[in-house]
Amino acid sequence: MTGRDGGADLRPGAPLDPVVILVRPQLADNIGACARAMGNGGLFHLRLVAPRDGWPQERAWRMASGADRILDAAQVFPTVADAVADLHRVLATCPRPRHVVKPVLTARAGAGVLRDAAARGLRSGVLFGPERAGLDGEDMAQSDTLVRFPLNPGFDSLNLAQAVMVMAYEWWVAADGTPAAVLQTGESQVASKALLEGLLGHLVDELDASGFLRNTPKRPGMIRNLRHLLQRGEATEQELRTLHGVVAMLSRGRMRRGRPDEGGEDGGGELEG
Amino acid sequence: MTGRDGGADLRPGAPLDPVVILVRPQLADNIGACARAMGNGGLFHLRLVAPRDGWPQERAWRMASGADRILDAAQVFPTVADAVADLHRVLATCPRPRHVVKPVLTARAGAGVLRDAAARGLRSGVLFGPERAGLDGEDMAQSDTLVRFPLNPGFDSLNLAQAVMVMAYEWWVAADGTPAAVLQTGESQVASKALLEGLLGHLVDELDASGFLRNTPKRPGMIRNLRHLLQRGEATEQELRTLHGVVAMLSRGRMRRGRPDEGGEDGGGELEG
Repeated sequence: MTGRDGGADLRPGAPLDPVVILVRPQLADNIGACARAMGNGGLFHLRLVAPRDGWPQERAWRMASGADRILDAAQVFPTVADAVADLHRVLATCPRPRHVVKPVLTARAGAGVLRDAAARGLRSGVLFGPERAGLDGEDMAQSDTLVRFPLNPGFDSLNLAQAVMVMAYEWWVAADGTPAAVLQTGESQVASKALLEGLLGHLVDELDASGFLRNTPKRPGMIRNLRHLLQRGEATEQELRTLHGVVAMLSRGRMRRGRPDEGGEDGGGELEG
Repeated sequence: MTGRDGGADLRPGAPLDPVVILVRPQLADNIGACARAMGNGGLFHLRLVAPRDGWPQERAWRMASGADRILDAAQVFPTVADAVADLHRVLATCPRPRHVVKPVLTARAGAGVLRDAAARGLRSGVLFGPERAGLDGEDMAQSDTLVRFPLNPGFDSLNLAQAVMVMAYEWWVAADGTPAAVLQTGESQVASKALLEGLLGHLVDELDASGFLRNTPKRPGMIRNLRHLLQRGEATEQELRTLHGVVAMLSRGRMRRGRPDEGGEDGGGELEG
């Protein structure tokens, strides 16, 4: 969510990365927003078929938030047939069912087709229709496969750049190895079980000293509950050091305030603050 | 990709559907675009924390393309703490690594957490930061989990509504049963293998009659290649009827033009135009 500086590291796409083909786009703003979404998903090759207001349009660059290189390299074609002539696989986004006999893929499966095509040395592209009407029947006949995003059928008014975003996102994710879930720990390591037990031991010692766990038949259960809570958190070594300090400080305060204390080094202390 | 009419079927969300929480959003345009993206992904509950220009803002409704009900029902809170007070699970979107110790999920895994929470009767929400700066450290400390979309690290300038779109899309897909690939056939059925063989038989008969397949050792291989091609297409019954007509018409033309013909009913014919 940064500004134009985001474009500095935008790399030109590989030759076999899929081409995004905007068919008769109406608004230069949307073309720019599409370029930005392409950059987010690692797509680079942009083709425009008969953009309504001509090309180039300065507004597109203003909306691209730094994806200038994508717009600089965009190619313009008079017809869809021209724009797909050198491609081997052409997907057409199709928000709603149409009476065409064609395989229909989800966005995710479509991204898989695009990845597979590139791996086989084939050039691929994805057609996106004009803002209001979408692709017409002739446009779709230039494709071999339709892509329909699974989205709320009760509200399928999808912005053009949003459609490009979903496809670009799935293209990126299809080759992304990010684990579904990780614990981000910064500088510190996740604590070993021994360190966790060390903290628990410190806490239990102080609780015993305070009388909190003294002579109660519930003692084993309470310790087990504390252990469960600590285990759930996947604490870091740094966090355990902090908790050791917390336990020590609370015990010291207790001791100073003269609360029940059997194990403390000093039994005295005044009530403070 | 329709206009404002898309809002007619927009249904209010279920009580346990996740809440989208825009933290200190700057532009009303973006709030409207977020509402539209929410509608696309079947999300309904919108909360705004201290929107910069106050609330309501007419521009938001103009950018929502019919998702008016989402904006009409939006709630405004002074702080993140107020906005999440009644929630049980809070995810925070975090485009870039920060030094916080917190589980980090992909958008897809995050959507799974949201679905699971709803299934368990828990209320959940997702925090999205202001356009430029994103969520700050205090905002993220109000969450239990971070979500980082797998996207191009070389161009991570993600528009606010695009971020909401990806999350809403994953929310929808997480419960969507759309097959990854189907053949859309309209009125007609996919043809059985027997119908496919019927067409192939018709074609081979006519090719034999034309002399094309006559006495050649390659005949079996050529028929097999034709069969392979026909099999790949997953043809419909309607398409096979068309192809029967095509074969018949071509044969008739050939016969009329007096080309080699051993099997035809009439051997005559003039060359025509």
